[in-house]
Amino acid sequence: MINETTKSEFLLQFGKRLGEIKKQKGLSYRKIAENCDLDASFISKIEKGTENITLETILNLSYGLKIQPKEFFDFKVDLEKE
Amino acid sequence: MINETTKSEFLLQFGKRLGEIKKQKGLSYRKIAENCDLDASFISKIEKGTENITLETILNLSYGLKIQPKEFFDFKVDLEKE
Repeated sequence: MINETTKSEFLLQFGKRLGEIKKQKGLSYRKIAENCDLDASFISKIEKGTENITLETILNLSYGLKIQPKEFFDFKVDLEKE
Repeated sequence: MINETTKSEFLLQFGKRLGEIKKQKGLSYRKIAENCDLDASFISKIEKGTENITLETILNLSYGLKIQPKEFFDFKVDLEKE
């Protein structure tokens, strides 16, 4: 049903959005890591779109960046694509 | 840093929100399952808040319910709670 390309594009979109928020807030990976239970290198991999993270990691990122989880999904997904 | 209760509350909030959307759309678990790669029993467990699902499963739910991923996070998280 949903092919692998569509899935990886979604992870990339999430990572790109994370990067935008990080830039807006002027935070380093290390600073974000200090505010939550994730380490800096994992956060940078999430931003690169290589990590299929879980809800608990999304919650951690919210604590790390001090924003509501909804903000990470402020982009459009083409639901017609297979 | 983030305790287990806070994490489980987040999964419950996500599940509750999934239930609201499912109800608004008048869809059964079976119907949602037909539109994506998840099976009905897993979707019902997600709604109960017992599953720490991944981004790819969130994407699947978006296809299943034909809504943008952002809609699932239309609730507030108390980021001051440890």
